Amino acid sequence: MRTLLVGQSGGPTAVINASLAGVVDQARKAGFRRVLGMQYGVLGALQGELVDLSGVDAARLERLKRTPSAALGSCRYRLQSGDAERLAALCKQEDVAAFVYIGGNDSADTSLQVARAAGPGLSVVGVPKTIDNDLAGTDHCPGYGSAARFVAQITRETALDTQAMRATDPIRLIEVMGRHAGWLPAAAWLARERSHDAPQDKRVPARERSQDDAPHLVYVPERPLPVERIVSDVRQVYAQHGWCVVVLCENQPTPDGRVIGAVGQPRWVDPFGHAYHDSPAQFLTHQL
Amino acid sequence: MRTLLVGQSGGPTAVINASLAGVVDQARKAGFRRVLGMQYGVLGALQGELVDLSGVDAARLERLKRTPSAALGSCRYRLQSGDAERLAALCKQEDVAAFVYIGGNDSADTSLQVARAAGPGLSVVGVPKTIDNDLAGTDHCPGYGSAARFVAQITRETALDTQAMRATDPIRLIEVMGRHAGWLPAAAWLARERSHDAPQDKRVPARERSQDDAPHLVYVPERPLPVERIVSDVRQVYAQHGWCVVVLCENQPTPDGRVIGAVGQPRWVDPFGHAYHDSPAQFLTHQL
Repeated sequence: MRTLLVGQSGGPTAVINASLAGVVDQARKAGFRRVLGMQYGVLGALQGELVDLSGVDAARLERLKRTPSAALGSCRYRLQSGDAERLAALCKQEDVAAFVYIGGNDSADTSLQVARAAGPGLSVVGVPKTIDNDLAGTDHCPGYGSAARFVAQITRETALDTQAMRATDPIRLIEVMGRHAGWLPAAAWLARERSHDAPQDKRVPARERSQDDAPHLVYVPERPLPVERIVSDVRQVYAQHGWCVVVLCENQPTPDGRVIGAVGQPRWVDPFGHAYHDSPAQFLTHQL
Repeated sequence: MRTLLVGQSGGPTAVINASLAGVVDQARKAGFRRVLGMQYGVLGALQGELVDLSGVDAARLERLKRTPSAALGSCRYRLQSGDAERLAALCKQEDVAAFVYIGGNDSADTSLQVARAAGPGLSVVGVPKTIDNDLAGTDHCPGYGSAARFVAQITRETALDTQAMRATDPIRLIEVMGRHAGWLPAAAWLARERSHDAPQDKRVPARERSQDDAPHLVYVPERPLPVERIVSDVRQVYAQHGWCVVVLCENQPTPDGRVIGAVGQPRWVDPFGHAYHDSPAQFLTHQL
């Protein structure tokens, strides 16, 4: 029976189940008579943990689109030697014609390994999903929009509280995810009520142009800066406005390529080799 | 002119402006012809930064109730020698009959000092405000309800994501504010779909009683526990369910009175003498 196999991988986003609903819906329209889901991604598939989604009705698919978390279960798992071949064999055994994996960079790599192991008999599709918005070929990656909205909201809330507390707690640093991609910290600009480029915008009256607004400073990893520069930026904004809200990336680097605050070895390296360093915000707090 | 002086103090809550709107409204009903607001709490008042709220109309007061942050500006300021007397003198000079200060424990102490300095001519009222819910004489302190809702929501979201990721990231620790009061971590129980005491509840079918739910473990500072006990609790839940969501307080103590993870001196001591230690959750992460 012509079968499509679908899985979810990496951290859940607010819309990863909407992608799953779309895959199931389109699979049926494309003539797949059976749709199987992997439980906990390829990790579950390797243990034969599959769930039959063929009978899920339209109303349930509609609800799935708005259901939080990852309905199939997800995983962060780097394929070990022989795993890709085992997954290819599973696909052959279950008459799987299409292998669809919803995930980010690492999941796309997993899909590629499965495609190479299975050869031309298996169609392999990677469905983009990441809050970091750093997947090639996507404009706004599914998952980024909701995360960007969250960053903007939390920045606005923090800015309002900091403005109210400027007399005694005037400086606030917000550290945002994104690894080496600045899209998420950049979304903090959406928290401003007025445009940052207002001085060039003649439509905005001069009185408003001179008004204060937050965040005042946003740093992205694509633009490395020395610690001293950031410290002097913050001091300048504080001198001018009496308060300062700063947003920076979890991996904000200096020009020599080191993550700010990272001394020596990273705290932790995940199975994909991504390093987790100490907090740049914590380090800068002590500098300020 | 019979005057009421009102100020906001400490961190803003979601409802501190509703308290302010209530004070202004009731002041008028009680016959105060003038209502003055302190900008940035007593710190602004000491510098003569007062704003006249007498003319604020009803529609604006209504909007104020739902406005985030602290509209007057707030502060965290411990009165210095002579400050209470200066505030008492300001009240006399401005013909202030009532001094109303919206805040938590430290703000109530500030109010007490002003009351003592001013003597019987000045009515001093502390309006309770704290997310920690630890003010004597209040049932649910204004500010606690919205913060408790936030804790419950974030715990539910984290629980759903952890359940989906149980195959590779099965244990999650959530560290919650509250200093030495466990109300906020306790609110995490609201994130559960089913009652924690379900085994005693005969109305719940046995099948559902045995089902898994999160958070699995919640620790409050009123119940000190050895680190080994928490670690063994987590291991037991993980062995039983394959995942575990833990909520604990920022100052979770051990039976000998030390904050978990705090080695030697606190990282920072604020002007009120409150100590800020390293994160108990971070410490426990390394233990697990």
